Amino acid sequence: MINSVTALQAEVESALSNLGFPEQPARLYEPVRYMLNLGGKRMRPVLVLMAGRMFGASEREIMPSALAVEVFHNFTLLHDDIMDNAPIRRGKPTVHVKWSADVATLSGDAMFVKSVQLLMSCQGKNKSSAVELFLQTALEVCEGQQLDMDFQSDTSVSIDDYLNMIRLKTAVLLGGSLGVGALLAGAADEAVDHLYRFGVNLGIAFQLQDDILDVYADQSKFGKQAGGDIIANKKTFLLLTALACAVGDDKKQLEYWLSLETGSYTPSDKVSAITDIYSRLGVREKAEAKMNELYALALSDLEAVSLSPEDKKPMKELASLLMSRES
Amino acid sequence: MINSVTALQAEVESALSNLGFPEQPARLYEPVRYMLNLGGKRMRPVLVLMAGRMFGASEREIMPSALAVEVFHNFTLLHDDIMDNAPIRRGKPTVHVKWSADVATLSGDAMFVKSVQLLMSCQGKNKSSAVELFLQTALEVCEGQQLDMDFQSDTSVSIDDYLNMIRLKTAVLLGGSLGVGALLAGAADEAVDHLYRFGVNLGIAFQLQDDILDVYADQSKFGKQAGGDIIANKKTFLLLTALACAVGDDKKQLEYWLSLETGSYTPSDKVSAITDIYSRLGVREKAEAKMNELYALALSDLEAVSLSPEDKKPMKELASLLMSRES
Repeated sequence: MINSVTALQAEVESALSNLGFPEQPARLYEPVRYMLNLGGKRMRPVLVLMAGRMFGASEREIMPSALAVEVFHNFTLLHDDIMDNAPIRRGKPTVHVKWSADVATLSGDAMFVKSVQLLMSCQGKNKSSAVELFLQTALEVCEGQQLDMDFQSDTSVSIDDYLNMIRLKTAVLLGGSLGVGALLAGAADEAVDHLYRFGVNLGIAFQLQDDILDVYADQSKFGKQAGGDIIANKKTFLLLTALACAVGDDKKQLEYWLSLETGSYTPSDKVSAITDIYSRLGVREKAEAKMNELYALALSDLEAVSLSPEDKKPMKELASLLMSRES
Repeated sequence: MINSVTALQAEVESALSNLGFPEQPARLYEPVRYMLNLGGKRMRPVLVLMAGRMFGASEREIMPSALAVEVFHNFTLLHDDIMDNAPIRRGKPTVHVKWSADVATLSGDAMFVKSVQLLMSCQGKNKSSAVELFLQTALEVCEGQQLDMDFQSDTSVSIDDYLNMIRLKTAVLLGGSLGVGALLAGAADEAVDHLYRFGVNLGIAFQLQDDILDVYADQSKFGKQAGGDIIANKKTFLLLTALACAVGDDKKQLEYWLSLETGSYTPSDKVSAITDIYSRLGVREKAEAKMNELYALALSDLEAVSLSPEDKKPMKELASLLMSRES
């Protein structure tokens, strides 16, 4: 199974490298090539291909739609990096740093056009439903990004608001990738719906795992700074849960640490103090319970897809692989 | 005829105001509504409707594609305004000034998605060719905007480079609007091609007229500052022609004025001096000759569309109206 994912990743990588972009204008297309060459797990196009294969489509038949999803995803990363002032992406300077924000904006726009062109070039079945799902997903990803930005200054974000935001910003694209692959392979509407929901709930569970790993990952395996979210006061599921549960001294302590200006404290002190509050409030357990609930929900939708367990095995194994990472 | 354009504009305006955007997230969709409510001549959707009508489609049938083109055009204005640091659009603050560059970027992205959704919702004929033409046009508009930005610092821009840039940045969208309308109405490929080229050459002629009016418009009718392009050293057809023709003292004078820093001269002195050079070199006549050549080329393609002169009359009158403005 891991071999099968690796094989699909390699197919995506090779197809991506054969995607021809014009040479000129160089400042429009060079950043596109740079962005697509930065690598990554190519998880979304793999989901498209896997969903297509489940319903009998060949990789070749639906590869353009898999590339469409990957190019779209990279367009959102390009624009998000401008908004987040992110200097680094996969160890390399971001496009707005290496070129300029204007270049990143326009190259991103061109990538979005290219993604729709790729999808339109597909020969699969139910193409107009697939395009419709893709565009609806694209709009929801924009909504999710806007909510994420709004939440930075919004002091009344609830846990449900947060779950809705990560559903839009991250999870619908996993569901949409599966739905597009299944639609183009000619799957029935009911199967498409189940697979879509499987992807969305898996995506939310995956993001919750990200929140948990930020604090509790084994640092020898986790690439990022421990507690980066805590230091940045990021409104994750953990922090919002703590804010919802804390009373008395815990509440005061939490508010104290959140109110401090950057530079006025030692980061590791803040991480320890807030992690201690999380421990007293059982925040990790609550987050894991929510993550497991969503993972189970995802699997029940996969269960409901009317195919043999054998046919669904690769997808189930991919889900398990995604949820068992330690970093 | 002017009545007929006015009627189509009113139909577009009414259909635009009925376009429902969600209320939330407010900072994503409020700027979209704001942008679409700023007004404008709605020339591109009118071209879609007029081309459709020529080949027998009803306005109702292809209105979503007309709106698609208008929403797309406004998306490009939104992103261009960020890149150009433009504070004002149609007398109102631009979105990146009223909200922020991040909001303008993301609302623009959402408008772009919406424009493709609108086009996909059309029930016309040859839909996939229409979508293909629309996407190809969208990519070319991105290329044109990048070239325009490149030209600001490029000291070797030729007149042909400039004509190619305005073709991509401005003219292909006029051609594309006509092509989309004609395709959805079921016009034959040859007619679509002629109409497309009519639009593109008309678009280039229109932009050349803009360059000419910047310097030579009757100031009582022209809304902008006279010689704004001259003051900004903008590489218009006029300046590039002057740079290509000037020798001796004219060349020295021209280079002198182009080398001055903003604030180190009286703007009206620079406008007079450069306009004098233009006069000596016959720059206005050369620009008008090029404009008329392209206008004639456009009309010959309209002529070649295999419809009765009666059927083509509204389009011919619209072209004449566009080219006879004094401001």
